[in-house]
Formats: sequence, C-alpha cells, structure tokens
Amino acid sequence: MQTVGIIGLGLIGGSIGLAFKQHRDHTDAPAYTLIGYDTSPSRRQQAEQRQAVDSTCDALNDIAQYAQILIIATPVLAARQVLAQLAPHLQAETIVTDTASTKAAVMGWAQELLPAGARFIGGHPMAGGTGSLDDARPDLFHQATYCLVTPAQAGNGEEQDEDEAALATLEALIAALGAQPLRIDAQTHDRCVAAISHLPFLSAVSLVESVANAPDVEIMRQLASSGFRDASRLAAGDPAMYQSIALTNREAITFWIDTYIAHLQSIRQVLQTAPSDDDGRLLQLFRQAQQHRKELLG
Amino acid sequence: MQTVGIIGLGLIGGSIGLAFKQHRDHTDAPAYTLIGYDTSPSRRQQAEQRQAVDSTCDALNDIAQYAQILIIATPVLAARQVLAQLAPHLQAETIVTDTASTKAAVMGWAQELLPAGARFIGGHPMAGGTGSLDDARPDLFHQATYCLVTPAQAGNGEEQDEDEAALATLEALIAALGAQPLRIDAQTHDRCVAAISHLPFLSAVSLVESVANAPDVEIMRQLASSGFRDASRLAAGDPAMYQSIALTNREAITFWIDTYIAHLQSIRQVLQTAPSDDDGRLLQLFRQAQQHRKELLG
Repeated sequence: MQTVGIIGLGLIGGSIGLAFKQHRDHTDAPAYTLIGYDTSPSRRQQAEQRQAVDSTCDALNDIAQYAQILIIATPVLAARQVLAQLAPHLQAETIVTDTASTKAAVMGWAQELLPAGARFIGGHPMAGGTGSLDDARPDLFHQATYCLVTPAQAGNGEEQDEDEAALATLEALIAALGAQPLRIDAQTHDRCVAAISHLPFLSAVSLVESVANAPDVEIMRQLASSGFRDASRLAAGDPAMYQSIALTNREAITFWIDTYIAHLQSIRQVLQTAPSDDDGRLLQLFRQAQQHRKELLG
Repeated sequence: MQTVGIIGLGLIGGSIGLAFKQHRDHTDAPAYTLIGYDTSPSRRQQAEQRQAVDSTCDALNDIAQYAQILIIATPVLAARQVLAQLAPHLQAETIVTDTASTKAAVMGWAQELLPAGARFIGGHPMAGGTGSLDDARPDLFHQATYCLVTPAQAGNGEEQDEDEAALATLEALIAALGAQPLRIDAQTHDRCVAAISHLPFLSAVSLVESVANAPDVEIMRQLASSGFRDASRLAAGDPAMYQSIALTNREAITFWIDTYIAHLQSIRQVLQTAPSDDDGRLLQLFRQAQQHRKELLG
C-alpha cells in the first residue's frame, strides 16, 4: 500500500485527490492512501470534509515521513519554500513532484535544496484556471496534457535508472487522473507555456487596463459582451500565481511580448495602408488566423 | 398590421426573426408580418424551413415595397450595396435600420444614398459572435444592449419629430427582442466598440499568429488548453465581417492598437526591472486588472 502526499489543497491539489479517489473506487489497481497538507488549518479541514484526501497532517515533516510520493501543488514561489522545509525530512526512496506553471526555476531549486539522490521530477498539468478547493473536481485533468520534466543533467547509469523508475511511477498516477503524460525538458516547457499561457494572460491584462483607463469606460461597460468577456477571462486569474509565474519565466515571456507586439504592429501597418475596398491583405490575414486557430485547437 | 422586412438571413437576421415570432406568439402586442430576403436562394429556403420569417421575397425591391420597417442584417460593406439598391424603391414612410458593427460609415452612406426624408436609424445589437442561420436562436439578444444611432445633423423640428417617432418604433421592437436599447452617436459608438470588440479581435489574431509561426508550434499545440482557447476565440470569427469592420473603423482601431501596445510595453518594463522577489509592482498590476475586469463585467 503506497501513500501519496498532496501538499497544497487548492483547486489543483484538491482535484488530484478527488481524481485519485474516484480512480481507486472504480478499478482493481493497487490501492494507495492519500494524505494532505496545507498551511491553512481551515483548508485542511475543508479538504477532509470534501473527502479530497483520506486524512490530513498538521505539519510538513509528518507528510514527508509517511508518503512515498509527494506532490507539491502550490504556486511556483511557494514551492521553493516547501522544498527547503521538506529537505531535511525526506525519505531516501521518496519521489517528489510539483504542479507549478514554470519548470526551470523549480528544477534549479530542487537540485539546490534537496539532498543528493533525491528523486525530483517536475510536473505541470495543463488544466486548472481560476478557482479554489471549492471548485475542485475529479475530472479536471481529464484528457489534459500533463508535463513531466526530468533533471537536465543526466547522472550515472544508476541515477538514470532511478529517474526512469520514478517517471514510470508518476506516469501511472497521471493515467489514473485521466490525463496524458508528456515528457519535456524544462527550457522547452517554459518557452512553450510563455506563448500559450503567460502571453495570453498579459494580453488579457492589457485589454482590461486599456478599457478601464478610457474616458468612455462607462459606455464601454454597457457595450461589452461575450467577446470581451472571453478575451479578458485570464485577467481574472489569481494575481499571486501570475506574479510568481512572471518572476520565474521573465526571459521567455519578454521574448513573446516582443513577438506579439511585432504582429500587432504588422496588422496596424496593413490596416493603415489598405485601400478602402481592401487589396485582399486584411482578408487574407484574418482568414489565415482563423485557419491557424483551427489547426492549433482542433 | 405592420410588415417588418429582414434583409440578410444569417445569425443576426435569423435570430431577429425567431425572436419577433416568439414574442408575437406570447403577447397580445399588435401583430406584424415578417418577410425576409437574402441574396442566396438556398438561405431564403432555409429561413422558411426554420420558420425564422413568415415568407421570403425573391428580390430586394419586393421587400422594399411591402415592409414599413426594414432591418438590414448584413456585414458593414454589404450594407452599402443594399442601401444603394433599396434607395429607388423605398416607400416614403419606411423606417430603415441596420445591425452592422460600425456606425459612422453606415450613417454616411445612408445620408448619401437614401432619398431626402428617408428615415434611417443605425442599429447595433451587442450580441452575436460566430455563426450562421443554423445557429440562430430567439434568445440571442436577451438582455443585450442594442445601440440606436440617429443622424448627427439634426434637421428642422418636423424631421426631429419623425426621427423621434422612428426611434420609439424601433425601441419597441428592440424590447420585443428582449434587448435594451441605448441611444448613442456614431462616433462614440465606433470609438467604444473599437476598444471592447475590434481590439480584442486583433489581439486574438496576433496571439494565434505568434504561436502558429513559432518553431515549437507542435509542442504548443499539445499544451494549449482552455486559457488559450478563450483568449483566441474571436480569431475564429468571420474574416469578411472583420475585414469590413476594420476598413470602416480604421482610425479608432489604430488608436486602440497603440494604446494596447503602450500597456504591453509598460508591463514588459515592470517585468524587466522587478527584483526576483518582486517589489510589489507586478502583483499590484495583476490585482488591479483583476479588480478592473470585475467592475467592467459585473
């Protein structure tokens, strides 16, 4: 009987717990016990009431002592603190993973803070959004891609075998969530999520701030409908989460802001120079984006 | 018994027809007959099958002859052609309105093309999105703001009275759609929709094109989830519709692209200069956008 510890009982940690429990109840797969920890006592209590875990611990070192697999489901910057506090209490065989939105920083902290031989595999489920433990649900990760990131520096043969075994263990757990594991290196991960997740957040923030500071904002408020609602939805996300994302993925995000601005400038240029009956370039541009979006999202 | 003519039987025209019929069936309000016209014979047939109108005409001058109220539910540029073709056939008392997404250009065309004394009131329901007659539904405009635009140059007292009577007639029809009429001038309308509708479309196009041209596009495709889907949704809109919007609202759209880029540049600046533990400015920026969005969308 394995014990899985979930550290951080918000939307992600709570949904992981609910998904594991649902899977456990519906298959003959080897059972495991779920224990949870959160810095907030009331959230620990709430997680027990929702039965998102089997039980909770009152201290981080307790969960380190009991669990063979530890999932750190906190925002990026909090993950650093958790790693530092866990380090002295980790069992030799424990597999540690996380769910944070950027990976290079977390991989660096794990290498810096965890004892030699500790098996840390970075994780990032591509699902979630805005919400708390109240919004947790067992199907949150259903059919979502779940990134797994191994340390960049491959060790000796024995360490590679241990990493491979840890990956296989986590891949089985991810399958139990209904998600699809994807092995990826930290740099590629961070570059890609900067484009498809962090840039869209900043584009939403800029949309909201452009309108909020307009002299006509009161009329705009009356006219805004589902288009503006969808385009700006990410700006409703947790500010502290996005703060830690921005601080740990600056270089890639800056690159994508620049690329994005260049695209906006090129549209502006076409708009300014098109004849009043268009010369087809605007239409071509919009058709291409429509087609590209279909290819990207299926 | 009044006859209302709907020219253009797509998502908007079809939904207006369905909404009027639903209202007619459920109230004791004075009845009216609905006739429809579309350049496509198959769409005319489809509108009859869906019972979006009571009957259809095979020619634009027929609908001009029978209807006391004409609603032009075509994209912006097509509205110009319709106005030119309608002009010689308009009855003196007919009220003409449209549903196009920009208003200054349409108001100008109406003044240029329609006979003196024609009563044209611009219209724009703030609902719709992507779709065709297949997607038409009677509740599309439910609780939406519906803009009504009177000619900028107020005429003599008699003309003002006629405009006021036409506005009152259209406001009653808009109430029957379940929408909320809002009187607004063409310039304010175009400036406001450039910010809350046309800019979000171009921001979505730029997001899609940034990702579609990335070397890592195949990995990004696997990682893209609901956040990217929502932020880019407007880029799935009809390219021809957005082409005509862009061409008839260039000045306001260019202004808003520049404002938007300035906001992106200022975020880039904060991101570049924030210390690694942040000095609170990023967090403050994201909190402010979260709060502003709540105020804008309720």
